[in-house]
This record gives sequence, C-alpha cells and structure tokens, in this order.
Amino acid sequence: MGRAASAKALSLEASLIDWLCRTLPRSAHLLIGPGDDAALLKWTADRDCVVTTDVLMDQVDFELDHVDPRRVGRKALAVNLSDLAAMAARPKAALVGLVLPRSGGEQLAHDLFAGIIPLAEEFGVAIAGGDINSWDGRLVISITAIGEGTPDSVWKRSGARPGDAIVVTGQFGGSIHGRHFDFQPRVKEALCLAEHYEVHAAIDVSDGLSLDLSRMASASGCGFEIEAARIPISDAARQSVKTPDTDNAALRHALEDGEDFELILAMPPHEAERLLSEQPLAVAVSRIGRFVSQPDFILIDARGSRAILIPGGYEHRFDS
Amino acid sequence: MGRAASAKALSLEASLIDWLCRTLPRSAHLLIGPGDDAALLKWTADRDCVVTTDVLMDQVDFELDHVDPRRVGRKALAVNLSDLAAMAARPKAALVGLVLPRSGGEQLAHDLFAGIIPLAEEFGVAIAGGDINSWDGRLVISITAIGEGTPDSVWKRSGARPGDAIVVTGQFGGSIHGRHFDFQPRVKEALCLAEHYEVHAAIDVSDGLSLDLSRMASASGCGFEIEAARIPISDAARQSVKTPDTDNAALRHALEDGEDFELILAMPPHEAERLLSEQPLAVAVSRIGRFVSQPDFILIDARGSRAILIPGGYEHRFDS
Repeated sequence: MGRAASAKALSLEASLIDWLCRTLPRSAHLLIGPGDDAALLKWTADRDCVVTTDVLMDQVDFELDHVDPRRVGRKALAVNLSDLAAMAARPKAALVGLVLPRSGGEQLAHDLFAGIIPLAEEFGVAIAGGDINSWDGRLVISITAIGEGTPDSVWKRSGARPGDAIVVTGQFGGSIHGRHFDFQPRVKEALCLAEHYEVHAAIDVSDGLSLDLSRMASASGCGFEIEAARIPISDAARQSVKTPDTDNAALRHALEDGEDFELILAMPPHEAERLLSEQPLAVAVSRIGRFVSQPDFILIDARGSRAILIPGGYEHRFDS
Repeated sequence: MGRAASAKALSLEASLIDWLCRTLPRSAHLLIGPGDDAALLKWTADRDCVVTTDVLMDQVDFELDHVDPRRVGRKALAVNLSDLAAMAARPKAALVGLVLPRSGGEQLAHDLFAGIIPLAEEFGVAIAGGDINSWDGRLVISITAIGEGTPDSVWKRSGARPGDAIVVTGQFGGSIHGRHFDFQPRVKEALCLAEHYEVHAAIDVSDGLSLDLSRMASASGCGFEIEAARIPISDAARQSVKTPDTDNAALRHALEDGEDFELILAMPPHEAERLLSEQPLAVAVSRIGRFVSQPDFILIDARGSRAILIPGGYEHRFDS
C-alpha cells in the first residue's frame, strides 16, 4: 500500500503543524517557514539557505518487499528536490539519515545509495553526510536538502492573488502505478520559470492536486475555481478506473491521488498566456483555473455547472 | 536499554561509512565531509554552512515507556548541537523529522517539541521546519542542524599532530544514569575555545571516549597515549560498578560507555597548559595524554605500565 492508495481521513497532521507555527519562537534569521514547502534561512546579503526535510517509511511510502530499493533511495531524495523546486531554489546538498533493519541492512544501504547518488549527480547535489543506524524495526529514510535562494527569488505558497491563473506542470493521478517513484522533480523547470516569468506563488503536489491547491489558496487568503475539462489526467489515472463511469473516476484520481510531484503555480493571467503559448519546458504546462477572492473551492464541470470541491488527498492519521 | 548499555560488537557501520566516503562523487561545494562530525558546505566567501544530522529511535537510543518524551526531544536536538560544537560551528537552525506511533502520536509530538523548543531557544536555533508522519511502528526522530563556520574557523577530527596534548571537557562514563539525556552540548565552550586558543582537531564523544579518540587519531594519521589516572571519571561511572575492583571497572565505563557528549581536543602542549591554568569554561578541562606518531593506542596505568588499548564503545550492528 503506497500512501497514494491509503485510506483518506481528515487528520491531526494539519492541526499539529498549525500548533507548531503558533508555538515556535520567532527567529530573526528565519525568513520563511515552517509551513511552506521549505524554509528560508537568512545567511548572507545575497545568498540565503532554503532547507527542507522529508521522512519516508517502509509500509507507508513504499513496500520494501515489492520494490527495488534503488527506487526507494531515489524517491527519498526526489521528494526533497521537489520541495526545493516548489520554492524555485537551486539544490546544493543533502544529508541522509538511515534506520536500517538489522537483517540485510548493509546491502540495503548500498542499494538505497545506488538510487540516491545518480539523482544527486543529475541535480548537482552534494551528499554532505548523514547518520546510519540499525534496529529491529522497518526501514526509515530521512533526507534533508539544502538549496540556494533569496527572499526576492523564492516562491512562497502564500503569494497567490485573486485573478491569478492556476497553472500546473505535467499530468495527475495514478502515481501509485510507478510515477510516485520515478517522477522527475521539477527543479530545472522551476529555475527556468523563475528566471523568465512572473510567478506569485507555488507548491508541489505531494498529497493531492485538490488538497495542495486548497492549501495554497488558504495560505494566500483566496479561493479558487478549476475546470474539470482542463485538468491534465494521466493515462495511469485512467487505467486506475474499472467502473463504467470512467471520466469522473479518473478525474477523482487526478484530484486526490497525490504524489504527482508536479508544480502548481499562481501567475498573472498575461504571464500564464505567454507561458502556455511558449511552452518552454520539457514537460507541458496547463492552465486549469484561477484564484478568486471568495474563499470557496469550486469545480466547474464540462457542462459549466459549478460545485463545491471538497479537497481530498493523503493526510497522516492518529488514533485519538 | 539505552545505547550506552547495549552489547558492544564490532560492526559494519564503519565499513558502510568508509564505502560511502569512497563512493560518493566529489563535489566542489563540499569543503568537508562526510566522515567528520558535520560537513562544511561552501556558501559565500565569508560564511559557509556546517550541517549535521542524527536519527534517534525508540528502544535503541531511549525507551519511550520509561522516559519523559520531553527529554527525548531535547536529546535529539542536543546530539546535533554537540556535533556542531565538535566543529566549533555556531548553530543557526534545525529541521525536525518525526515518525510517530499512530496511537498517542499527537500528544507525543507536543511533548517532544516541549523538550526541543527550550534548548533551541537557549542556543539561538530556529526550528526551520520538518516533516510529521505516523505509522504503526515505534517513534523515530530525525533532526538536522545547520550552523555557521568557515574553512579557517572549523575544527576537523583529522587535524591532530604528533605531540599535541589530548584535552577533554567534563567527565566520562555512566551516562546511562541520566546524563545521556540531560547533557549540555558544548557549543558555548567550543566557540570560546575557538576564539581564544589554538585547537588542531576535535571530536565529540558519542560512542565512547576510547572509540571516538581512536577515530580522531586514525583520521589524523596518529596514535595516542593516555594516562588512566588523568581520565576524569564521573560519579555515575563509579556508581555503575558493583564489583570490588572498583577503579578499573569505573575506568572501563569512562572509556567505553559513550554518550558523554564532551569534547576531545588536540592542542599544542603550550596552549593546553595555558587552557588548563586559565580554566575559562563553565566545565573543567583536563589533559589526559598526547598524540604520538606511532599508530598505536596506549593506556598507561597508575604505576606507569603501558598496555595496548582496544577501543570499545557503541557501534550499530547488522546481521549478515
């Protein structure tokens, strides 16, 4: 069971993060974060640190019995690079924390790094260090990535404005069939967009297109309207559907599956038009709707009917 | 069972780290690491990043059933600050990755942060972000700390020279009785020493005085001689001993228990003498021996007899 296929449940994860954001002491050298895709840490006048961390666990984010561990290692780094991409930060280094099952742990460590290292080289990321541990529990892999950015250059999720176009890279849904391992973090795309276009806000889709878009809208004090017909539904999402009601079910997968690791961007409409006509990236970009001042989340179907969209996706659950 | 009390076993952890150091691609922006207490990441001309990560696990580094989780949270940050201290780096920020048991996970997260936050405030560390997860396994807490340093200012473990005095802060042994939770990371001490004294190399004692000293000597291409009578043995180490052979057993605890999180420093002899007479720190410093050019590790007993010291301490084990 990958997390994309996990049971959906409204969770306490969000309330924990809210509590932390209220509780953590203010710090003069923390320019952004926590609460965004990554934090911006004041460093020098012209070059700050963008930092992010992600922890993946066997039986939650992957099933070690059914996947090549090199894909697990690659994913653990890739999800962090996706967070840096969502800030338009240039990756520089990563630290790798491993908790290995005692049985077979050494070979597993080799295999994990055999997945991590080629991706690190592809993106110019130095493996700066880590911590290797063993226990009688299941594999946990924790990676922290560090990138470069400045307060002027980084994208926050909270910068969307009413009227901004909602633009996405790539396609959505069905990542469980393989793309949640083999996706390409949109680092190069983000750096290209940041250089050549006006982008007001961004987030990467880890927990679901509708859920991450709702987080971006809420952080920005906006609502949104998206058009079902414009949402790029992946072939994998369509393959996930076995019922006759193919279109709606595939749309639901695209909106809620998560782990697409594509970017959602808020852009002024004229910039979005220019981007869509120029299509400068290796991946296609699509305009799926717009941010609005009303705080509602609206899905417009193919016949123009408007309905309230309940954001769905993956959230960590706790027993009370 | 804390790791200080775990069975000692020669492990594959060291061979994994060796393999990584050989395998990882060279990177122009990685000035130090992996293989030291922390890595030094090139940033700007006058201010580089020092980064380190540590992962702690329930039933390995602590027993959640028998300890206040606030002490666990505090320890998870403190071990990282101790690594920064071993590099004489000034802490700036930390990221916290949690893998919480699903049952009681929310309250546990609150308690962990209630231990993390006061220590972070004491050392001016911004909690820059993190990742909160849940599963049906045991608690894992992974913290990455980021500090400031420059190639000229940071201490490596590999800089010891034959003839250097071996100086330590504090006392050793018996940390299992409480100090492995409540130790004070020697950050302020390290910054004071770096500013006022010549220090050639340093390491913090996580896995055992003799083991970490042997790592420092090996990294520096040296051996060492230490005098049993000069090793500061903690009261807790003496309390650990129930046999009549009190002195030797307590010494063994001081040499091998680990998790003392004191500093071992390599200093020119005249600088060590000045430091010992000035005693400028909140904690006492002691001179316990010297580095030598021969690659042997020697323990000199109270009667002046010399014996080969087999370094002992905690290492992670794997089943083959």
